[in-house]
Formats: sequence, C-alpha cells, structure tokens
Amino acid sequence: MRLTRYFLPVLKETPAEAQIVSHRLMLRAGMIRQSSAGIYSWLPLGYKVLRRIEQIVHEEQERMGAVPLLMPTIQPADLWRESGRYDAYGPEMLRIRDRHERDMLYGPTNEEQITEIVRASVGSYRDLPKLLYHIQWKFRDEVRPRFGVMRGREFLMKDAYSFDVDRETALQSYRKFLVAYLRTFERMGLKAVPMRAESGPIGGDYAHEFLVLAETGESGVFVEKRMADLSLGDRAVNFDDPAEVQAIFDDWTSGYARTDDTHDQAVFEAEVAAGERVEARGIEVGHIFYFGTKYSEPMQALVTGPDGERAPIHSGSYGIGVSRLAGALIEASHDDKGIIWPESVTPFQAGLVNLKQGDAATDAACEDIYGKLAAAGLETLYDDRSERAGAKFATMELIGLPWRITVGPRGLKQGVVELTSRRSGESVELAPEDAIARLAEIYRGL
Amino acid sequence: MRLTRYFLPVLKETPAEAQIVSHRLMLRAGMIRQSSAGIYSWLPLGYKVLRRIEQIVHEEQERMGAVPLLMPTIQPADLWRESGRYDAYGPEMLRIRDRHERDMLYGPTNEEQITEIVRASVGSYRDLPKLLYHIQWKFRDEVRPRFGVMRGREFLMKDAYSFDVDRETALQSYRKFLVAYLRTFERMGLKAVPMRAESGPIGGDYAHEFLVLAETGESGVFVEKRMADLSLGDRAVNFDDPAEVQAIFDDWTSGYARTDDTHDQAVFEAEVAAGERVEARGIEVGHIFYFGTKYSEPMQALVTGPDGERAPIHSGSYGIGVSRLAGALIEASHDDKGIIWPESVTPFQAGLVNLKQGDAATDAACEDIYGKLAAAGLETLYDDRSERAGAKFATMELIGLPWRITVGPRGLKQGVVELTSRRSGESVELAPEDAIARLAEIYRGL
Repeated sequence: MRLTRYFLPVLKETPAEAQIVSHRLMLRAGMIRQSSAGIYSWLPLGYKVLRRIEQIVHEEQERMGAVPLLMPTIQPADLWRESGRYDAYGPEMLRIRDRHERDMLYGPTNEEQITEIVRASVGSYRDLPKLLYHIQWKFRDEVRPRFGVMRGREFLMKDAYSFDVDRETALQSYRKFLVAYLRTFERMGLKAVPMRAESGPIGGDYAHEFLVLAETGESGVFVEKRMADLSLGDRAVNFDDPAEVQAIFDDWTSGYARTDDTHDQAVFEAEVAAGERVEARGIEVGHIFYFGTKYSEPMQALVTGPDGERAPIHSGSYGIGVSRLAGALIEASHDDKGIIWPESVTPFQAGLVNLKQGDAATDAACEDIYGKLAAAGLETLYDDRSERAGAKFATMELIGLPWRITVGPRGLKQGVVELTSRRSGESVELAPEDAIARLAEIYRGL
Repeated sequence: MRLTRYFLPVLKETPAEAQIVSHRLMLRAGMIRQSSAGIYSWLPLGYKVLRRIEQIVHEEQERMGAVPLLMPTIQPADLWRESGRYDAYGPEMLRIRDRHERDMLYGPTNEEQITEIVRASVGSYRDLPKLLYHIQWKFRDEVRPRFGVMRGREFLMKDAYSFDVDRETALQSYRKFLVAYLRTFERMGLKAVPMRAESGPIGGDYAHEFLVLAETGESGVFVEKRMADLSLGDRAVNFDDPAEVQAIFDDWTSGYARTDDTHDQAVFEAEVAAGERVEARGIEVGHIFYFGTKYSEPMQALVTGPDGERAPIHSGSYGIGVSRLAGALIEASHDDKGIIWPESVTPFQAGLVNLKQGDAATDAACEDIYGKLAAAGLETLYDDRSERAGAKFATMELIGLPWRITVGPRGLKQGVVELTSRRSGESVELAPEDAIARLAEIYRGL
C-alpha cells in the first residue's frame, strides 16, 4: 500500500482524554477514532490489526475442532426471558424497542441464542459434543467507558459454546478450549496466564480467566513464577486425545495463579516459596466457564442419553476479547516512540521508506523492492510522500511496523538498503534482494 | 470437515413461512435459522458462504484501490442531526436510547459517519481522492421483513464512499466502482446488469443499480439484450487510467437497461429493436450513487482547492448487499433437488460420500482421499455418517456442493471412485488420484 493512497490520519498531539498508553497510541497512530463514548471506528490501520487477531483466533478455534457460525447482534427479549436473565442483567444491557413495540436487545453475550439453536435440532447424545463459536460485535452499556477499546461499549468478541451429554464430557470440552487458548495467545506474542476465576454473571463452578501481565492491567494477579514462564511452543496437540489434553491442562493449572477476585494470601504463602511469588497487574483477554445446565434446564435443551432418559445438555462458554486484544497487545509491546507489533499481528509486514522521493533512481529502486515484497507475499506500507526522512521514520516508529527498509541515493550507489528492526532499533545494510529474502524468512510460517 | 462433527441441521419438511425458493432452501439446507422477524443466525454452512462472498467483495474493492476500515453499528443521533436525516429517515431507523438517555441509532448506512471521519483529517485537495469502504452489519426496521435474507432487518452490506475535490474527479471514482462491481459479480457466477436508477433516499443525480435477472426478482427490468450478454471476462483493468475505466464504463452503460423506477416505454421502443427488448424480473444486489456535496456541505467537510479556496468535498456511496447475495445466488442457481453453488462461493469445494461407513477398506480409502484433498487446498465435507447412500446423496444435492466424490467397495475393487457434477448430474469413474487432480484443476485460480 502506498501511503499517499492510504488513509492514515496520525495525530501530532497526544489526545488529552486518553489515560493509558494503548489508547493514546491507537489514537495517535490513526488506528481508531471515537464515534461516541466507548464506541470506535477502526480506521484502516486498526482494522488490519483487528483482522489479523481475528484470523489467529479463527485458525486456533478450527484447529481444536470448534465450528464457526454467526449469530445476529440484535436478539429478541423473549429469549432472555426464558433464561431469566432479561430482568437480571441490569442497565449494561442495551434494550431496544422496534417499530412494532417488540422488546429487543443488543446482545452482550449469546448463551440463550446458541442454546435455542442447538435445542431445535439436537435430540440425542449421539449428536454431541457440539463445539460452536462466532466472532461478532457485542454491546455492553458500560456506565463509564474508558481506556479506548479496552473497555468500550461496542466490542468484538469471540464466544464459543460447548454442548455435551454430561459433566465429564463437558469438562473435556472445557479443557480443549483452555489448551487452544494457550496457542492462540502465544501466536500473538502474548504471555497470557490462565488463572482461576470467579464465575461472575454467567454462572457456573469451573472458570478460568486468561490474563496478560501488564502494568496498566485492571486486575491484580498473584502467580507462581513458573506458571508465567510456561510455553506451549511448537508442541503439536491431538485434541481428539482426552488424556493428552488433560495432561497439558494439568500442567497449566498446577500452580498458583489467581486474580484478586480469587486470591488467598495464606494459600499463596503456604504453596509458593517466597522467591517464586509474582505480584503484578494483568489485563483479561479471555474467560472460560463451565456452567452445566444453567441455560439448558430453563430453556429445555434436552437430549436422550444412552439410558433413554431425556436430560439437559451440559455446557460451557469460552470468550476471547478480540477488539480488546488490540489494546492489550500495545500495552504489552511499545516504547516511547510508539507501538512495536509482533510479526504475527502487524498490519503490514514491512515499511518501505524512500529517502528522496522524486529522485528517479531512488523511486525506481523503491518500486522494484515494493513489487518484489508483494511477490514474496509480504504486505508493505510504502511511504511515498514528499516528506523529510525524520518525519517518515517517526511515522513508521509510531505505527510500529516490525521491519523497515530504508532506500536512499547514497546506499544505492553502494548497492545496499537498510533493514531496521523496530524492536531492537538495529540496522543492517544489505543488497535489496537480501533484505527481501531476510524478511521472507522471518515471516515464513507465520 | 467430517459431517459427524459439523453442525448441519437440514430440515426434512419445507418450512411453510418461506415464500421464495432461496428462503426455503437456506432453511432446509441448514444455512440460516430465524432469530426474530427479519433477523437470522448464519449457521455454519451459511456462514461459510457469507465469508466467501465477503472475500470476493474485499478482493475486488482492494484491487480497484479502495481501502478497508470498519465503522461501528451504533451511531450517535447527533451525527444524523447534522445532515438533517435523523428526523427525515422515518420508522425504518432503529432508534435507541442508552443508559445516559442519549439518542443513538443502529446504522442503516454510513454517509454521516464516514464524512465525520474524513473531515477530521483531510484538509487539502492534495489529500484526495480517498476511497474507503467497510463491510458491516446494518439494520433497517422493515415493516414487513420477508424473503429470508433477501429483505431482512439485520443485514450485511459493503458500503464504500469516495471523496474527491470536484464533480469530474468524483465521477472518475464513480466509474471505478461501477467497473469493479462488474468483476465482483462475475466472479460469483452472477449476471448482474448495471441499470440507470433513481437516487432514492440517499439523494444525488447519478446512480446505477446492479440487478441479477431472476424470476422472483422484486423489480421489473427492461434491458437491451446485448447489455445482458456483456462480460468482462479476464480483461485486466488499470484503475489508474481514467480513459480505460471510462471506456469500460461507456460500454456497460451504452444500451438501454432500466428498472421500473426509471423505465420509459417510449424510449425503450424507440431505441431498441423489437427482437432485442428483454423484459424480466431482477434482484438488486448493488447500488451506486454520486451525491456531490449533499453531506459535505451541511457537515462542513471542506478542503482547500488548488485555488486556495475552501470548498465542500464531492462524494458518492457504493453499496453491495453481501448477505442478500447469498439469497440472490440461490435464486439464480438451483433445481428441484436443492442449491447449485458456483465454484467461487461454494461452502466446501467437494463433498465426499462414503457408501459403506464401517467397512475398513472403504473407510481407509475415504480417509486417504479426504487427507489428499486437504493437502491440495480443497475444503471437503466428508459424509461419514452411518446413513443410506440415498440419504447422503440427497443431503449433498440439497446443500449444493458443485462436486461430489463417491467411494464404495465395488468401485474400489476396480480402483475407481465416482466424480459427480452437481450442475450437470453427470458422473465419471476415475482413479482417486485423478479425481483429486481434476478437482484441483477446476479450482485453480478461483
């Protein structure tokens, strides 16, 4: 993409209303623009990041065997009256009356809707398990929306739902989601630790939150050090093998890892050696619940079991804050110049800076490199503006592309361009084709 | 995907409420499920089709140089008060009051919102043109929603907006969109004819609708025969060359092609020879408008021109009914057994039918073919249920996958499987590897 054709409205000033770094940087980098309190437009750069995050979530959900569908944003109130949550939910639910005076709502979550879908067609334990998910916009009418996309009102969430014949198989599904989440967050370059959680308004008795450790996190976290250091790495997981999934689940839930909702200082001190206790702040990016028959019972979502008896389905729900992750990623990875995107979610794989726009040889070299990067499957943001080098570098650093190729007349005379890492700040001089090959190698398999 | 793990709730009976074939078939094939009047969940099969349509729209928008972003569904009423449309829009607008008693609405379209975004950062004619689009859910509170996703209340639309310094450059942008739409619909296997249109509630004086010819279409169409036969084919288009775009535009708008809104029988008869006049029904799938300064003037979206004067930006908007297209595709391509998907939008590239589930050799052959199809990049729906062959064939025909591989013990003894075209109904016997190679060839480049 040529910057002169793109729409990248970066801000020179730091917006006064933004209290945390991710909100400031998303506004400054032209990623988002506020529409009204807690509601944002995702400008082109932000939208690309959102799509990359979404894509990783899709891939990891499908890898574990969950099936995508898409439920609407507007739900009928009657569905929520069946579960009893229409009255219980409170003012965070955006309630709507349509032109025929029917009560509707903008879905804050989808347990009722998915239970209605499943009960309409699933009749026997043989039809189970079913693991279904969607990525859809939600609305929660927060009384004080803040922190940009981290606590917005309209937000994008991945919510999955499991349907099993009994508690034991439901917990197998639960464990699959926990394990799938490990790779999901790792692929984004995040260290997200599963922590024992209260079940909250969804209800249930088996719940974990995934928290990214970051100074600006809204939750206090208390973690045994080795839990924060675990990594799934490239380990292949056979999700069809309950024992293998259980073993990984056990590893990741064996140590102390709690938020301040569930923290117990006495247990922390008894179970964890003093030097191993980490007290920090965390950002919630995922939340999984087993809630059993909480919805299937009132909504009469029943299956005939192997014994011929009709009984309510056992379920769980599994959320990932897709839009929130864009903010969490920045909280976890930035410096005083701007954002530092991990390669897996960067909006463009490379930035290309032309130091002398209008100089025929430099323009031609840039065009050539730009074309070759595209041919190598790398999306590049080419700064083809007639701006000073300093302004171009500042923009690239602000928007956080992990790799930059700088092309100028002086280097070209020696047959080289500069390849710069956003993270380390280090540059190397390379022949253009070597710089392209290096980038292709870095992004291979991502 | 193995059917036993999928969620494909096909219906045996034809739903009584569905009046048109696409609505009936989408319900029967387990593509959608009604949530409330005019609001649908997209079940896994339907969701896959929606994503394929969306992907083609994205690719063709980006090819012409339009830049994607994403605006929220909920907009502040104040924005629409600026343009004067808040009061003018009528009861189709879903009006909402939030917990702080602020007037909001679920966006039926986005002219105001995108104009606000552009005016905030664009100040000079040098920043123009800008071509921006998003694919987002919209809501129009139809008084009588019907025809399934063809006239729903919550629907997915691609809406693009152009921003230019004057009328002439704005019309260049307008022509680009018309030309980009030609390939967009052709890639979906649709014959969509651009027709002169009234500008409708958006306003403006330069407008075309794209209509797919289909018996159940809601509009009458009057077309010169050669206009319905035009095809862009593989012709490469340089969107940076206004003369080339203009020439294509002229070809596609040179003949008589109007809906009953703009039809003039006397002109039709005067301009078109009797044998060349086609009178038919059509389904609107796209709509483009040039509306000039209709929004930029009241909303004060101004740029400084080359003459140093501040003047309102000239704009157009360009819609494609993404969710509606799923229905239109079925209206245009089905038979009495079910849907017939074009290869470019089919939810799965192939169906695989195991005629003797549980027979070790047949199961092994199916597993082998299933794996090799995946390795060839082909998504396959593998019917691994213990069902009769007839039931498996009926399901495949209903859901409309264009190609089916049938594997049975008798064929395997002779080293062959059957490859069947959904469209022609013809089958050929081939060695498994030849069937896979044939499919890979069919889908190459799609």
